Amino acid sequence: MYSFKNDYSEGVHPNILATMVETNLIQQPGYGEDEYSLNAIKILKNRINREDIDIHLLVGGTQTNLIAISAFLRPYEAVISAQTGHIFVNETGAIEATGHKVIPVEVNDGKLKVVDIKSIVDSHSGVHMVRPKLVYISNPTEIGTIYKKSELEELSQYCKENDLIFYMDGARLGSALACKENDLSLIDYGRLLDSFYIGGTKHGALMGEALVLCNDSLKKDFEFNIKQKGGLLAKGRTLGIQFYELFKDDLYLKLAQHQNKMARILNDGIKDAGFDLFIDSPSNQVFPIFPNEIIEKLEENYSFYRWTSIDEKYSAIRLVTSWATLETEVIKFIETLKAYTI
Amino acid sequence: MYSFKNDYSEGVHPNILATMVETNLIQQPGYGEDEYSLNAIKILKNRINREDIDIHLLVGGTQTNLIAISAFLRPYEAVISAQTGHIFVNETGAIEATGHKVIPVEVNDGKLKVVDIKSIVDSHSGVHMVRPKLVYISNPTEIGTIYKKSELEELSQYCKENDLIFYMDGARLGSALACKENDLSLIDYGRLLDSFYIGGTKHGALMGEALVLCNDSLKKDFEFNIKQKGGLLAKGRTLGIQFYELFKDDLYLKLAQHQNKMARILNDGIKDAGFDLFIDSPSNQVFPIFPNEIIEKLEENYSFYRWTSIDEKYSAIRLVTSWATLETEVIKFIETLKAYTI
Amino acid sequence: MYSFKNDYSEGVHPNILATMVETNLIQQPGYGEDEYSLNAIKILKNRINREDIDIHLLVGGTQTNLIAISAFLRPYEAVISAQTGHIFVNETGAIEATGHKVIPVEVNDGKLKVVDIKSIVDSHSGVHMVRPKLVYISNPTEIGTIYKKSELEELSQYCKENDLIFYMDGARLGSALACKENDLSLIDYGRLLDSFYIGGTKHGALMGEALVLCNDSLKKDFEFNIKQKGGLLAKGRTLGIQFYELFKDDLYLKLAQHQNKMARILNDGIKDAGFDLFIDSPSNQVFPIFPNEIIEKLEENYSFYRWTSIDEKYSAIRLVTSWATLETEVIKFIETLKAYTI
Amino acid sequence: MYSFKNDYSEGVHPNILATMVETNLIQQPGYGEDEYSLNAIKILKNRINREDIDIHLLVGGTQTNLIAISAFLRPYEAVISAQTGHIFVNETGAIEATGHKVIPVEVNDGKLKVVDIKSIVDSHSGVHMVRPKLVYISNPTEIGTIYKKSELEELSQYCKENDLIFYMDGARLGSALACKENDLSLIDYGRLLDSFYIGGTKHGALMGEALVLCNDSLKKDFEFNIKQKGGLLAKGRTLGIQFYELFKDDLYLKLAQHQNKMARILNDGIKDAGFDLFIDSPSNQVFPIFPNEIIEKLEENYSFYRWTSIDEKYSAIRLVTSWATLETEVIKFIETLKAYTI
Repeated sequence: MYSFKNDYSEGVHPNILATMVETNLIQQPGYGEDEYSLNAIKILKNRINREDIDIHLLVGGTQTNLIAISAFLRPYEAVISAQTGHIFVNETGAIEATGHKVIPVEVNDGKLKVVDIKSIVDSHSGVHMVRPKLVYISNPTEIGTIYKKSELEELSQYCKENDLIFYMDGARLGSALACKENDLSLIDYGRLLDSFYIGGTKHGALMGEALVLCNDSLKKDFEFNIKQKGGLLAKGRTLGIQFYELFKDDLYLKLAQHQNKMARILNDGIKDAGFDLFIDSPSNQVFPIFPNEIIEKLEENYSFYRWTSIDEKYSAIRLVTSWATLETEVIKFIETLKAYTI
Repeated sequence: MYSFKNDYSEGVHPNILATMVETNLIQQPGYGEDEYSLNAIKILKNRINREDIDIHLLVGGTQTNLIAISAFLRPYEAVISAQTGHIFVNETGAIEATGHKVIPVEVNDGKLKVVDIKSIVDSHSGVHMVRPKLVYISNPTEIGTIYKKSELEELSQYCKENDLIFYMDGARLGSALACKENDLSLIDYGRLLDSFYIGGTKHGALMGEALVLCNDSLKKDFEFNIKQKGGLLAKGRTLGIQFYELFKDDLYLKLAQHQNKMARILNDGIKDAGFDLFIDSPSNQVFPIFPNEIIEKLEENYSFYRWTSIDEKYSAIRLVTSWATLETEVIKFIETLKAYTI
Repeated sequence: MYSFKNDYSEGVHPNILATMVETNLIQQPGYGEDEYSLNAIKILKNRINREDIDIHLLVGGTQTNLIAISAFLRPYEAVISAQTGHIFVNETGAIEATGHKVIPVEVNDGKLKVVDIKSIVDSHSGVHMVRPKLVYISNPTEIGTIYKKSELEELSQYCKENDLIFYMDGARLGSALACKENDLSLIDYGRLLDSFYIGGTKHGALMGEALVLCNDSLKKDFEFNIKQKGGLLAKGRTLGIQFYELFKDDLYLKLAQHQNKMARILNDGIKDAGFDLFIDSPSNQVFPIFPNEIIEKLEENYSFYRWTSIDEKYSAIRLVTSWATLETEVIKFIETLKAYTI
Repeated sequence: MYSFKNDYSEGVHPNILATMVETNLIQQPGYGEDEYSLNAIKILKNRINREDIDIHLLVGGTQTNLIAISAFLRPYEAVISAQTGHIFVNETGAIEATGHKVIPVEVNDGKLKVVDIKSIVDSHSGVHMVRPKLVYISNPTEIGTIYKKSELEELSQYCKENDLIFYMDGARLGSALACKENDLSLIDYGRLLDSFYIGGTKHGALMGEALVLCNDSLKKDFEFNIKQKGGLLAKGRTLGIQFYELFKDDLYLKLAQHQNKMARILNDGIKDAGFDLFIDSPSNQVFPIFPNEIIEKLEENYSFYRWTSIDEKYSAIRLVTSWATLETEVIKFIETLKAYTI
């Protein structure tokens, strides 16, 4: 049984483990004041090319989203999200649990456009409705699509003009950065967003998400919120080492490139075998449509997520590739698939 | 500079790291359904000698407390805690942030007694006051003292008779278990408490606390609460390996015994050098009273926490020993101290 | 300027004021234990024909919804509501502010059907999603439509079978009860719902909503929630008198009949004048479509709410009638309208 | 049976009822935009002698406290209150339910001093503790004592210097204003506090508390918080009329003077009959100490609250006088008491 279920089925990149082993007995201050965290943050600031930003290393994605959003908003302020947004669908109401409404917008490709946000903003007025205040996007989106620079610039400008906080969930940011179609850099994100996070968990780290606060108004006392929500790791060195190793050279990008490459082989092989894709995703998620009986056969040897039912006979599944996905297994999957179709 | 500041200054016990390295590339399901977590839980149930309990592996102590307590209580229900309780003092209002009042009780030795709880219960009645519903204790307490079996039995009985949830924060539980004075076992905790957690972070784990749900009424849907509060780790295998390695044999106890032994050497050496202790703690925290000028001199070579000012000339400090504290450094500290007093 | 803006533009029915004057100096216990509240509750139980229900008298609709829903649900449980639902649109995120997600369902006529609820229930599974647990309906809906007994029975049965709490917002319940098309009685509501409230504010009371708890499992300690959320009125007598006077005989129904009758005159007059209705509402809200220039002219003499823009030339407005709406003014409105169209 | 149980046993002052009757059928906008509310606010601003303040009319005291405090604070910020404070003891954890810790201070006379606040502020530092941010006082206090101008000025200065929000619960403010010993005016409150409320419920109104926002930084979007917490009354006219009638001339003060006068007669009569007082309260609450058998006899004819047990034989009770307390009944109470002691 080989798993394409997600990008966190394996452990952590060996470089990171090696540094953990090597530094293990060196005493360090707790709660993120260790030298590895400080160095990691220094390097990340350098990659984003801004010294004036704040960066906090957190453990997980839902944790990062809920800490950031609840810290940014006043009680009556709400979030605008695509109906497919991770915070709207897959975080067990974590944002609402902090008291804030998430207003969903129906979109086709997982991406918010200015027109969608404007429609929500325009339809909210007066004290009987929440005030939309934060725009949440994911890049790549939950269905694998990515934003173009021009799209992000338009969203950024609209947010600035309308006093909206522009926040990006970058759980799989590496995969977006590594796409052939991508024209956005970390420097662009630091310039266009008020806050975003760089995901480690799904790109070879043991765990860890680096939350970036670009807008000065969001920085004050932020760490109180981390501690209050249970997100301040005692041995913060562990998070520091993850991001130090991922970003001290190009490891983060290289791992993501591998993930995308494995996804491309799946993608092309599936098309080549005569199947359609439910969504055309350039990143490390692939959404093929297969007949149900083929899905059942594949499930004998492969682990993956059934995405949605297409009709009585067909369903879409989701295949995800990780930093450790083996090319031999990817090729074997395609061969297996082709064998089923003969 | 050597640190006695806390018990999380160093990394993780080498056995744990070794298993992380060894299992690193084996694919596992996410979110705690990996085989290491399942095995760790099996072993822990065995140690507690109850098959009918639920165990959830979480990342940190504040996280564990807030998830457990907010899951256990209805909105108007409150917690009774010693005024020194970690949740009352040192968790940035994490419990209140989930909507629940923590009612403090003034105690001298960090330990709650039945009479304290009864006084709170008796003074609360009617719908204009919160309903005290959960009794929170820490063992060892925040000032290093530990509960005797008879004390825990009395508390447990009172809680049962008064429909109170009896919960124990075991962030340093190993150190309590390893005390010479201790007469409580994991089996006792499983028998006397409705819920408690076994702390890993402060006893040689990279991170991790094992939350035990003994009372059936607390178990339902618990994992929804973990996810909602941002506590569900994608690579749950990391937590599983910590507890598997700590509990598959006696490692947890041995590490705690080392911590306590180092603390005893400090304790006895300090007394021997002619100094008093602020609190007589049998566990891995030592609270000596020193003249301020000696504290200043010690701070040149040692890192520790200034606990409280005694008078104009004297202060109490806190020395904490970890699984990795070096005996040579402990001895050197005592020698340094003695040299100051000549 | 005459107002059709809402059903709370005037004060309170004179009978209620008279009883307030008459009983004003009689000492009564506070917080709802006065004899008027006790009597009102007794009468309401009689009307619902169930002695075993609990009834709490609260001040306002948003307050009632948020207290009830937050008391009923565990932290990870969510509400299913029509996208037009008052709690989803017009209560400033009051439900989310208590920590619970409201899951919207797109509907045309403001009414939830089993198929809508089933679709939400079926698409939610596992701990990464909230658990849909409470079905929220309004009757009449926010767009004036009403439920038939067969519809409510189907919903009730589905909720029972799927362990869902079935809750009804009855802010304008009188108007539903007074509809010609209505086949539901208070007895039916008490039989089919787990909880609902009978609105007073919009049917001639000074203020006040009577929350009915039919399902035993929702009753325990409910008043603690009222107090904690700021809803326990010191001079609860005021609420008692409202419901006593409205329900001791048929005043509640008579006032609602008047409201509906006034709405019917508006409705028929508008059609007669050649205009269409945006929604065909049988209750005390009327939604005509007028050319924008006619709306502007009407606004010179009438106060009402612009509901939505139909196209560049036409908009829908909302006219609401109250217990005190004057028939002469209604007729004058129709005449004014007809004069504009000549 | 005559009640001295509280100051809300009777209805509302007849002047207010008369205006309610008189204006009953005049159409008014909802939600506090009616002319009575606007006029009431105008008059209150005039009494406080500040045009630049914001005033919101709310229904009840717990509601006012929770809306104000949750609107003023960021999630990790906490309240400092006397251990006797209404929000700490008697509001069912309403403040904590909005996510904020209330830090209690042990005081003897119900009044906070600078030294108490300073001690809390000095003992809180770093991200592991909440940040004390709002100082909550009640005037009169929950045990009937009142603040002197010099005391309020010291507190105000300390708060300003330490960036603390200074907030006063004025549920019985009239009684403080009407004390012989009082040297504080509404103008002083407006000058020295960041926010406070003027209680109507306990001074002859049907219901209603006027929340005053003096500090500019607290005003923004405040009404969203009112609506979200269920505090926005549809027929806001009712609240407007209360405060208009109480403040258009000296009715508020006169009613409070009556309350205090009745309390003085009780106070002096009780002393005269040879009994001690538990607290020496100058306002409308009296706390005599009686033998338990006398309390039992009094309970046959009088309703009051047993405050606390003094020893095996004696208890303190609380007698409260209202705007409608009858002097004949007060005298009869004293005579009854004296008869018991012969």
